[in-house]
Amino acid sequence: METLQPSTEIANAPTKPVAPQIAVAGVSGYAGGELARLLLHHPALSGTRPIFLGRAGEAEVGPSTSLEALHPYLTAPGHHASTPVFPFTWNRIVDAGTKVLFLATPHEQSREWVPEAIERGIKVIDLSGAWRLQETRNRDVYRLTDANPKLAAELQAEAVYGCPELHRDAIRSARLVANPGCYSTSMILALAPLVQAGLVDIDHGIICDAKSGVSGAGKAATAKTHFMYAADNLSAYNVFGHRHTGELLEQLHLSADQIQFTPHLLPIPRGILATNYLRLKQSTDSSTISAVFSNFYRHSPMVRLYPSPQLPQIQHVVRTNFCDIGFELASDGKRLVIVSCLDNLLKGASGQAVQNLNLMCGWNEQEGLL
Amino acid sequence: METLQPSTEIANAPTKPVAPQIAVAGVSGYAGGELARLLLHHPALSGTRPIFLGRAGEAEVGPSTSLEALHPYLTAPGHHASTPVFPFTWNRIVDAGTKVLFLATPHEQSREWVPEAIERGIKVIDLSGAWRLQETRNRDVYRLTDANPKLAAELQAEAVYGCPELHRDAIRSARLVANPGCYSTSMILALAPLVQAGLVDIDHGIICDAKSGVSGAGKAATAKTHFMYAADNLSAYNVFGHRHTGELLEQLHLSADQIQFTPHLLPIPRGILATNYLRLKQSTDSSTISAVFSNFYRHSPMVRLYPSPQLPQIQHVVRTNFCDIGFELASDGKRLVIVSCLDNLLKGASGQAVQNLNLMCGWNEQEGLL
Amino acid sequence: METLQPSTEIANAPTKPVAPQIAVAGVSGYAGGELARLLLHHPALSGTRPIFLGRAGEAEVGPSTSLEALHPYLTAPGHHASTPVFPFTWNRIVDAGTKVLFLATPHEQSREWVPEAIERGIKVIDLSGAWRLQETRNRDVYRLTDANPKLAAELQAEAVYGCPELHRDAIRSARLVANPGCYSTSMILALAPLVQAGLVDIDHGIICDAKSGVSGAGKAATAKTHFMYAADNLSAYNVFGHRHTGELLEQLHLSADQIQFTPHLLPIPRGILATNYLRLKQSTDSSTISAVFSNFYRHSPMVRLYPSPQLPQIQHVVRTNFCDIGFELASDGKRLVIVSCLDNLLKGASGQAVQNLNLMCGWNEQEGLL
Amino acid sequence: METLQPSTEIANAPTKPVAPQIAVAGVSGYAGGELARLLLHHPALSGTRPIFLGRAGEAEVGPSTSLEALHPYLTAPGHHASTPVFPFTWNRIVDAGTKVLFLATPHEQSREWVPEAIERGIKVIDLSGAWRLQETRNRDVYRLTDANPKLAAELQAEAVYGCPELHRDAIRSARLVANPGCYSTSMILALAPLVQAGLVDIDHGIICDAKSGVSGAGKAATAKTHFMYAADNLSAYNVFGHRHTGELLEQLHLSADQIQFTPHLLPIPRGILATNYLRLKQSTDSSTISAVFSNFYRHSPMVRLYPSPQLPQIQHVVRTNFCDIGFELASDGKRLVIVSCLDNLLKGASGQAVQNLNLMCGWNEQEGLL
Repeated sequence: METLQPSTEIANAPTKPVAPQIAVAGVSGYAGGELARLLLHHPALSGTRPIFLGRAGEAEVGPSTSLEALHPYLTAPGHHASTPVFPFTWNRIVDAGTKVLFLATPHEQSREWVPEAIERGIKVIDLSGAWRLQETRNRDVYRLTDANPKLAAELQAEAVYGCPELHRDAIRSARLVANPGCYSTSMILALAPLVQAGLVDIDHGIICDAKSGVSGAGKAATAKTHFMYAADNLSAYNVFGHRHTGELLEQLHLSADQIQFTPHLLPIPRGILATNYLRLKQSTDSSTISAVFSNFYRHSPMVRLYPSPQLPQIQHVVRTNFCDIGFELASDGKRLVIVSCLDNLLKGASGQAVQNLNLMCGWNEQEGLL
Repeated sequence: METLQPSTEIANAPTKPVAPQIAVAGVSGYAGGELARLLLHHPALSGTRPIFLGRAGEAEVGPSTSLEALHPYLTAPGHHASTPVFPFTWNRIVDAGTKVLFLATPHEQSREWVPEAIERGIKVIDLSGAWRLQETRNRDVYRLTDANPKLAAELQAEAVYGCPELHRDAIRSARLVANPGCYSTSMILALAPLVQAGLVDIDHGIICDAKSGVSGAGKAATAKTHFMYAADNLSAYNVFGHRHTGELLEQLHLSADQIQFTPHLLPIPRGILATNYLRLKQSTDSSTISAVFSNFYRHSPMVRLYPSPQLPQIQHVVRTNFCDIGFELASDGKRLVIVSCLDNLLKGASGQAVQNLNLMCGWNEQEGLL
Repeated sequence: METLQPSTEIANAPTKPVAPQIAVAGVSGYAGGELARLLLHHPALSGTRPIFLGRAGEAEVGPSTSLEALHPYLTAPGHHASTPVFPFTWNRIVDAGTKVLFLATPHEQSREWVPEAIERGIKVIDLSGAWRLQETRNRDVYRLTDANPKLAAELQAEAVYGCPELHRDAIRSARLVANPGCYSTSMILALAPLVQAGLVDIDHGIICDAKSGVSGAGKAATAKTHFMYAADNLSAYNVFGHRHTGELLEQLHLSADQIQFTPHLLPIPRGILATNYLRLKQSTDSSTISAVFSNFYRHSPMVRLYPSPQLPQIQHVVRTNFCDIGFELASDGKRLVIVSCLDNLLKGASGQAVQNLNLMCGWNEQEGLL
Repeated sequence: METLQPSTEIANAPTKPVAPQIAVAGVSGYAGGELARLLLHHPALSGTRPIFLGRAGEAEVGPSTSLEALHPYLTAPGHHASTPVFPFTWNRIVDAGTKVLFLATPHEQSREWVPEAIERGIKVIDLSGAWRLQETRNRDVYRLTDANPKLAAELQAEAVYGCPELHRDAIRSARLVANPGCYSTSMILALAPLVQAGLVDIDHGIICDAKSGVSGAGKAATAKTHFMYAADNLSAYNVFGHRHTGELLEQLHLSADQIQFTPHLLPIPRGILATNYLRLKQSTDSSTISAVFSNFYRHSPMVRLYPSPQLPQIQHVVRTNFCDIGFELASDGKRLVIVSCLDNLLKGASGQAVQNLNLMCGWNEQEGLL
């Protein structure tokens, strides 16, 4: 996997006329619904029809399920036909000539299906956590088993972490993109520029206090997604133990004692705000920090930087694919608070997945995302 | 069952010193939790310890369950012992010398347990719908089966509908109180005074548009209690078909074509607001209507009347046992809008149940409820 | 003003290449922000730059105000220039060659500015209530004064009520479009088909119980828009007295005693749900009613009809320009409940305004709105 | 002011029969309303009638204002008289024989009124920030001016910081209690035990990431308390600059570079959760930390401690006077996360004020607060 160095150019070539056949598996969840919405309105895909499929063994998707039944807000105007959703089969995917497959499936299924897709010559953008981490850590965190461990290890090594702001060039030519976690994206984009610039006293320890809306917990009805649990409430969870921590360690090249991350459940449908606390090696001024951010993201249309001391808020990013970043520096010039925000279903999931598709297809990175 | 006529006096005798042993079955739900809270702080019960039990076969209640584990907000100050919750057994209830049993259980369980309790000489306040309706309608609506149909029919005939504002005297001497539904209470209290006074053109039809917070849907995690379904949303449901309609018909002595009720799910934890539309037989002025309300509720401390055109709001009643009522009359003096509000877990459930307990024990009706 | 008869065809001509110069006054409010967002992303306007202006004497709009400062969520990607917002002057509008002016201004300002714009040859789409009602009623409801009463009366008579589903043809050639109220749109679209078909017993009286999110109350910070007032609450207001009632009367050709409408304030940011109660002249079946709706809206891409007994919800329409409609019929075949939903800032304001622009420009009605 | 050492006993003497006359100024705000509610239901005050007054020059309080008009949720049952609220005058307070005056007023007014009350022999519990900080810092933070600087300085030195868990004994005999800030209470109670025990590496720096509901921002209708700003949002504010920071420094005996605190605005009506990050001097185990907390709060009925790794949530404390505290320790035994929660209007304001009243009157500390 490449280094943290951001890629140095942005594709501005005119969008190509011929679009590849797209398939989406796992369309019934929240990320799947948003992915369907984005693909159905994507200008470069206007001549094609993506195929939408369920997960393996999903009761909700039968022989005559429609996208509208799963996500009523996606109902097309009255005169248009409904969009079918099929039970998952490889035949359906292969027969349609699928070139790129999105997996919005649980990590166990993604772990099983990615090798099958790649062997069939189909590129994959996987929204689960199954392929985001290096081999050893991945086993520890997700405890996945592989039918063909050797192939899985090779694919794991080949997988590109789908954060365009860090790995733009590698994504362009990837066969397998591991789409980042929602929390991880918000923290990595806040921290990467200064960590990469060597300005951060990483041994002092970085603290990320992150808060997410309930859609991040998924569509399953559980005690914690019950309205009565989440509404008018705030709770911390998985302190020292959230799975996204591994992505921070690998993408920022940190050890486990150099960063800690506490997730909280916010009483809102969507959006993440991360308040990131770090100490600089030496006293610095705000304009230097601004310059580091601006330079790092100079080719990244999906990151919006705020002039200090303005700070982003969740409302500014909800229903967009932007990650907004602002910061405030203490009077000692060393203690720094960086606030980052994104929509967990868009820049934290489906929007970023489409951003990766755009890169893989040679289209403008922001195509269909503004 | 007695007529609609409100009872004519309010008990103001000093609270008696000896309190009966109380038991509560089904304490794990929202109504059960609120009931426990009210009983633990009830002045007349300060010398006793109510027994708290689960439902039949409830996995959540094991041999060492505490009230605090089920409802963390009920945790006592650090120095106090925790309050045990026992699996349901008759032995536990009988051995403690229980005199009054609250059932905050599903209607199937209440239907089964009430005859057993009564036969053991234990009075029951049942919060389910099992005993609220007359025999025939009850079978149609709840489709319950009885081990001893004859006894059940007798108890059904004997059961008192636990709305103190309508049946105060009967409740005082009841063995079985059927605690009203939350929606029904809000609408019956809004409509009873004018219907009883003969002022309403009931053949024109009464329309009740009612809206409830999510706690009304219960603690089970379902697609409809998911935060993502309920938040930022409003939906109508069970149009023409909600079970509480039967209570309206019986308590207001109306036929099914004379009243209709549409429930809606509000994106709030608790509270009901009902907007009730009716037409008066002849043109009337606001002061006449006010007088009817004031007279009807002159002995009812739990109903607060608003001077027209002031209207109650959900926030005014949440976490109280009040039902607030206001109205506005059209310039024709005939079209009337009555707005009523209550907290569905208190006046709509557990608070009203304690109000009934107070009457059954000869205490002040509002004891422990202000 | 034309009759209720829906227009009979839908424009499917290819979008024309040359777009007119657009200006928007009053861009700082919620409707203004959504209007800016829609126009900036409108495919037919991609070659133009709309001009954005404040209201008269607005402190919030100074010489260097940007759209991003007023509406941070509209911030463009980092590499793009910010969008200026100018203090309102006629010179600015005229010098740019403006052909169509949107007014998202208070009704007093719209009343003053519309004659000035029309006299300068500029067409107007006015989002306020200033020009929606016929002369006499308008004076009663809005109490507006005119510099040139004769001209104002002529314009009032000429103004087209901007509901495309009712007045599509007249909008195409209008100089002045009075964009409908948010509440009114939700109720008129629910009721017009059956009223127009003569099926409704209008003398029995129609009752509309409508609920709106807080954005409908505008951006001014008041006691009623305070979070602490609106959150976890529901309140009825302006019973028998809401200004939008006049639109119902005129568009549905009803008298004041034939319809009543009660607005409620919902604890959500946006969305309206109206529960409409009416009685049919004679017993009817659901399929007949469905057929009336389907036929009435056969050329209307922005209305989505639900098969009975499915009902729309606010979440299905928020952030869309759709009005969703469903109904349920009582077993007597006469009592009917129609539920309609829309986003008050889109189909209830700015989206409908763009729909009207599309018609006035000869574009597809749904252009830029899907 | 005394040291951090907690007091060593809890008053269990029976409540005395004679209650002092109480007055409350500033009853129209949120804290004032909650204070009125608590005092009206306080068992030890059942024989008295507290006097309720407005702020200086408050338009909302006229000659015939009632508590119910200011706070409709406080409306008494129908048969009871309404509770008057008077414009503020010293005569009203003195003539009634007031012994204890609560000030729920802006800090400028509290600064002016406290000396006047003390000189009249009236004890004060001040809920503003005017008297919480030592002389020099106070001037820097609140920029207050004094009519009699010498007297003000003496009173400032005499004022007791009204946190019973830290200053129980001093509060009992205080003439002037400076009731703590809401944020400060949540963080001080989380941090004091371990800081006092000398276990914390304070030079490493303590980070407090705190989140508060909107009632903390007060009743004034502003852009930031607008429902549309606060709902579905989260925002950080006053980074490195919140006024409550001074309380942390003084009560925990820390310097400004040893602790930082970031407040956030939560989309909920009430409740604060603080996530506190600190590093221990040496590797420690959870049971040692638990023991420190248990010992520190062994006489404090209003603090509830959670067994690690259980953590409190806002819902557990809302509408209670408890501060709930839990923690989780990293596997290195050094990095510690302490989560604390309280209701900003109760333990963070009015509840704590009544707790202080109880101590000053020799009553049980929790009287009227359970």
